[in-house]
Amino acid sequence: MAPQRESTRPLGVAVIGYAFMGKAHSHAWRNVAGYFEVPAFEQKVLVGRDADSVADAARRYGWQESETDWRKVLDRPDIDIVDICTPGWLHAEIAVAALEAGKHVLVEKPLANTVAEAETMVAAARAARARGVQSMVGFNFRRVPALALARTLIAEGRLGEIRQVRTAYLQDWLADAEAPMVWRLQKEKAGSGALGDIASHAIDQVQFLLGDTVADATGRMRTFVGSRRGPDGPQEVTVDDAVWASLSLTSGAVASVEVSRMALGRKNALRIEVFGTRGSLSFDSESLNELSVFDGAVAAAGQGFTRVLVTEPEHPYLEAWWPQGHLLGWEHSFTHEIRDFLVAVAAGTEPSPSFEDGLQLQRVLAAVAESAASGSAIVKVA
Amino acid sequence: MAPQRESTRPLGVAVIGYAFMGKAHSHAWRNVAGYFEVPAFEQKVLVGRDADSVADAARRYGWQESETDWRKVLDRPDIDIVDICTPGWLHAEIAVAALEAGKHVLVEKPLANTVAEAETMVAAARAARARGVQSMVGFNFRRVPALALARTLIAEGRLGEIRQVRTAYLQDWLADAEAPMVWRLQKEKAGSGALGDIASHAIDQVQFLLGDTVADATGRMRTFVGSRRGPDGPQEVTVDDAVWASLSLTSGAVASVEVSRMALGRKNALRIEVFGTRGSLSFDSESLNELSVFDGAVAAAGQGFTRVLVTEPEHPYLEAWWPQGHLLGWEHSFTHEIRDFLVAVAAGTEPSPSFEDGLQLQRVLAAVAESAASGSAIVKVA
Amino acid sequence: MAPQRESTRPLGVAVIGYAFMGKAHSHAWRNVAGYFEVPAFEQKVLVGRDADSVADAARRYGWQESETDWRKVLDRPDIDIVDICTPGWLHAEIAVAALEAGKHVLVEKPLANTVAEAETMVAAARAARARGVQSMVGFNFRRVPALALARTLIAEGRLGEIRQVRTAYLQDWLADAEAPMVWRLQKEKAGSGALGDIASHAIDQVQFLLGDTVADATGRMRTFVGSRRGPDGPQEVTVDDAVWASLSLTSGAVASVEVSRMALGRKNALRIEVFGTRGSLSFDSESLNELSVFDGAVAAAGQGFTRVLVTEPEHPYLEAWWPQGHLLGWEHSFTHEIRDFLVAVAAGTEPSPSFEDGLQLQRVLAAVAESAASGSAIVKVA
Amino acid sequence: MAPQRESTRPLGVAVIGYAFMGKAHSHAWRNVAGYFEVPAFEQKVLVGRDADSVADAARRYGWQESETDWRKVLDRPDIDIVDICTPGWLHAEIAVAALEAGKHVLVEKPLANTVAEAETMVAAARAARARGVQSMVGFNFRRVPALALARTLIAEGRLGEIRQVRTAYLQDWLADAEAPMVWRLQKEKAGSGALGDIASHAIDQVQFLLGDTVADATGRMRTFVGSRRGPDGPQEVTVDDAVWASLSLTSGAVASVEVSRMALGRKNALRIEVFGTRGSLSFDSESLNELSVFDGAVAAAGQGFTRVLVTEPEHPYLEAWWPQGHLLGWEHSFTHEIRDFLVAVAAGTEPSPSFEDGLQLQRVLAAVAESAASGSAIVKVA
Repeated sequence: MAPQRESTRPLGVAVIGYAFMGKAHSHAWRNVAGYFEVPAFEQKVLVGRDADSVADAARRYGWQESETDWRKVLDRPDIDIVDICTPGWLHAEIAVAALEAGKHVLVEKPLANTVAEAETMVAAARAARARGVQSMVGFNFRRVPALALARTLIAEGRLGEIRQVRTAYLQDWLADAEAPMVWRLQKEKAGSGALGDIASHAIDQVQFLLGDTVADATGRMRTFVGSRRGPDGPQEVTVDDAVWASLSLTSGAVASVEVSRMALGRKNALRIEVFGTRGSLSFDSESLNELSVFDGAVAAAGQGFTRVLVTEPEHPYLEAWWPQGHLLGWEHSFTHEIRDFLVAVAAGTEPSPSFEDGLQLQRVLAAVAESAASGSAIVKVA
Repeated sequence: MAPQRESTRPLGVAVIGYAFMGKAHSHAWRNVAGYFEVPAFEQKVLVGRDADSVADAARRYGWQESETDWRKVLDRPDIDIVDICTPGWLHAEIAVAALEAGKHVLVEKPLANTVAEAETMVAAARAARARGVQSMVGFNFRRVPALALARTLIAEGRLGEIRQVRTAYLQDWLADAEAPMVWRLQKEKAGSGALGDIASHAIDQVQFLLGDTVADATGRMRTFVGSRRGPDGPQEVTVDDAVWASLSLTSGAVASVEVSRMALGRKNALRIEVFGTRGSLSFDSESLNELSVFDGAVAAAGQGFTRVLVTEPEHPYLEAWWPQGHLLGWEHSFTHEIRDFLVAVAAGTEPSPSFEDGLQLQRVLAAVAESAASGSAIVKVA
Repeated sequence: MAPQRESTRPLGVAVIGYAFMGKAHSHAWRNVAGYFEVPAFEQKVLVGRDADSVADAARRYGWQESETDWRKVLDRPDIDIVDICTPGWLHAEIAVAALEAGKHVLVEKPLANTVAEAETMVAAARAARARGVQSMVGFNFRRVPALALARTLIAEGRLGEIRQVRTAYLQDWLADAEAPMVWRLQKEKAGSGALGDIASHAIDQVQFLLGDTVADATGRMRTFVGSRRGPDGPQEVTVDDAVWASLSLTSGAVASVEVSRMALGRKNALRIEVFGTRGSLSFDSESLNELSVFDGAVAAAGQGFTRVLVTEPEHPYLEAWWPQGHLLGWEHSFTHEIRDFLVAVAAGTEPSPSFEDGLQLQRVLAAVAESAASGSAIVKVA
Repeated sequence: MAPQRESTRPLGVAVIGYAFMGKAHSHAWRNVAGYFEVPAFEQKVLVGRDADSVADAARRYGWQESETDWRKVLDRPDIDIVDICTPGWLHAEIAVAALEAGKHVLVEKPLANTVAEAETMVAAARAARARGVQSMVGFNFRRVPALALARTLIAEGRLGEIRQVRTAYLQDWLADAEAPMVWRLQKEKAGSGALGDIASHAIDQVQFLLGDTVADATGRMRTFVGSRRGPDGPQEVTVDDAVWASLSLTSGAVASVEVSRMALGRKNALRIEVFGTRGSLSFDSESLNELSVFDGAVAAAGQGFTRVLVTEPEHPYLEAWWPQGHLLGWEHSFTHEIRDFLVAVAAGTEPSPSFEDGLQLQRVLAAVAESAASGSAIVKVA
């Protein structure tokens, strides 16, 4: 189905899911128009399984209505955009249905739990795109101003040819072996553990920052705590707690990836270093508003990493916000994501990253997992 | 007039001013209920002088209406709360009128441009309080989680007796001598320069963190660029660019203050160090989500400043937000401020800091200015 | 030959090599007795190939004599200790001869260029040890106080069971593709590139800190600049510029290693993070006097990495030096190394790390190289 | 008396004092020729009051002899240089006698305990200088490479006109109220407390870095612990624990100074920030090898403080040392100081800072103390 909106009314938006990601996206929908020039839209409906809880969340987050059946939302002609914030195993089904129903779709990362699901979604996205229906996968770190700035610097050639990228994403919410079983530790629901959840962010950044694609990968994966307390006794943890990977990129650059949910003391640290022939840069999400940049052209006596506080009006997304030096938070990356998505939808252009980008990333994750399962030897990305 | 609200309807809110502070407060009003349990309220009206601009801002920030005459708002029975975000020279007039009209009042810091104005406001606040009408001055840094945590640690005695506090607030938006004249550089409009604008934050933090009051003060003030380009040629800068002060507190502690709008390279750095007999702590607003804490009871070999990432659910205000390690921004201090104000208003308790607190701070600022004007000798706070 | 010294005279010391490492060791020999209680010794002779240069260096660094033929030194009965600071390809020959001549031997890391050489050296060391002749390989980072402290904390169980170690050693002296050919880039002289030079430090630290051994390894290696300007035109670079490895340890812990001589902007950064079940720690050689320690037993609201300035008298080696807060430099790690070696020699105990330790490390390096040469699959350490 | 050395023999050196400063200076004398091209000299004699202890120290630190009577040293024709490392109350007597005896004199900072003593020393230095006898006061921080680099940058105009300097020197060795009485807390021996000991460093840096002089000063001083345990019961502390000062410089710049021996958790932190019209810089002695530099000419989007690791051969003093990234320690500032002093003595030029510089600094300290004693009003520097 083609998009149904008459051009004169605001875009109608539905968000599916109201937990962590649903809350973050809702906040972005609620605020985006307060800062950015975006097409008119309305926060129509928030969807969740528990009627009372979702009604309460809808009220709190500024949605006109709540709903428990996402399929009903797809039938509504006043809904133009569906933003999918459910756990990963529901992404494919909802996204395909929504696209077929002519809804523009934004789906949280990673695109799906498996390559097969992602392929189905890409097929649906392509068909929809031909009808003017847009789709996007939401890697919010692309919209962190410091990382958007990093990409610009690299694209402008300020770092020269990139040789080496170091990434890590370190958390510690599973460091305690007594922490109980949750769905994120069950392969059938989560697809994978740290791999899909956080290595996906790190690897997406490698490709995003360099404008390059991973050619091959090695992987090691480890589950440090193999069994956790469930409601009825111990349950097996069927996903990885930590992943190590090395990636070679089409350009010849090499990237390292280390992610863990057991890095005691690191709460949510995405760290990235990029080393090129002319310059380098460094980022740490625990200092979210900073980018450190090294310019190799400076004479040795003056060389060093320049800590740029990315809060100037000249920086990506910043003109909309506060005077310099007034920091933004993690959630604002979603505000920027929604802004970019809305602008693209209204303009009829393809938002980025596309479902194809999401599928390609899934293939890299699959290569890492395959390598890990077979002695860590290099696996070419399909 | 006593508060007029029938208990069953939501509180009606008006914000006066829609520039920098009006935007920040509006954002807080719009989002506070999405995160915190607060009494029901409605974003009724945004007030500003330019009809078109304020109408546009009202639409963007979620206000039902806009208005150009703040007096009309005071006449409306559906308005219960007036939040004053105008430049300082308008604070007294509006606040007194609003309180007399039975509106609960939140006013941005500093309370007023002069001690005399502040005294008038305190008189009005006292009279209103007797009728159940609340008032508060908005020192938003008190609601930065790291600083709220700092106060708790000090109040619990974790630092022992405080001996020494170091504060600085460094900005650089006036470092360029070619930057043009603005109202903030004119004494008749702004009252003072860096003193009222940013030294007020630093000194409020000293008193807030220690739960103590300044007994006497020395001051130096300097205007580095004495004249700036106005619309019709050069105009004299009649306020200070930088201030240095030393304060002795009632407890015997000594605090230093250094603030500047010409500290080239420092964008918005409020830095605080507190040294006690048992422990110490350190804060920098450029690392807004961090507090470094030193525990003197630890054996020498293990001593050091512990960098606490203040994003745990156990930390002040954090339970409402994101999982650990997902940083908040500067603006969220206003969300917390509005939350605390709303809760107090609904409970009929006195919100803090009060107008009396604002007046007392004004007296400290006056002592600093008086010292600076008379050879920097110690001046007792009135 | 057994050690020849009559117990009453000071130990006679010879250093072979006077370039970078010879200078650093000489400085340590010259100063060690000024700070530490060590057995009496004399700086007898400095050995180098160029007679004038070595004579000048000997004079400057406090040696009584200079010599161009290291074999002559081994014949001298007044020499008890030979400290080998030559390039790696000379280690085996000199060390074996010195041990056979009854000299105690200290040799710079890595022990040798190949496993075969290292095995010969171990055989000689074992035979010598039976005659009371001691030997040691000099991994100086073990004597950086912050890292010595780290090892103590881990050995005491303060971090619980170690799960994950992250190491990197980043330099940039080869980032410039125009930098000329040097012996360190020729496999026949240097054995390997970043692998033996700096990955050896990182991997030694992993094993040293954990008191554990590497069981298997994966490796990737990359030479980014394949040819460099030699005296007679371009010459092939036959060693690696950068290495990535993942290691599993006997305990089940996993360690990552990333080293590079092309990490533009990083001058000499050895970074180590260790994550355990009870605590974590972090080190960066660019902040050489600091160790950051995380204690997981602290309640969430007070958790964080404590930055310990490792300059207290209670810290390893520090009692000999300056008051707290007065930083040590990189070179002092050699002073500590010489101190420990001298004390062991005098006591007739075995200094650490032994040649066996050096050989075992060489085997890990070989496993990394073998993995890198065969598709990065896991290789067991021989 | 004129210098007595026949030009052909090495300079004979004596150091008076072998405690903290005597040890640091001895280390520098022992090593300076190993790194730098300096005139030939011999470590002749170390002087101290306790015969056994000084003999032991002399042996350990490389001195040929020891001596208990400093006057005897002045009589020796083989002594050309006298380096005074005693407590401050002995500086004047020894320095004047040594200069009169024709010895070149280096004296530890501060020059003296009082302005009167310093004036006597200056008179002696002037008379000696006329006879070719040199003198210098040793503010070692001037020879920390990062600070020497800072001075160069400022002198080159890289920061433009300096407006504002912030300095602090924070220690905590007296934070414990139970720490016993020591001579440094007795006015008759130490002259003052934190003022002469560490504020002197901070203020010297202000003048050194800016090439400017203090015109007037305010001061506050505080003794937090008024009595400490002596050998025979409580004794009064007659010096300051902490000092706050503001200084105006001849150029119009303003500098702040805050020093304390009770800043719990800060072990030895000399922090300096300099803000100019074109650039700024920042230093912290706890990161001794770093200087952060801000260039205001960079476009806003790329602005930030560049962290220069001051270990390049192009940096002051660094060519003599190790490859880039290999950090120096605190003690090496003395090696550089001795190097500069030796070179000047041999060349017959005046080393810097002179006794006149030392006296001028003493007058600034006196102005701070006078201000503190009289209500903190501004006092002109005599």
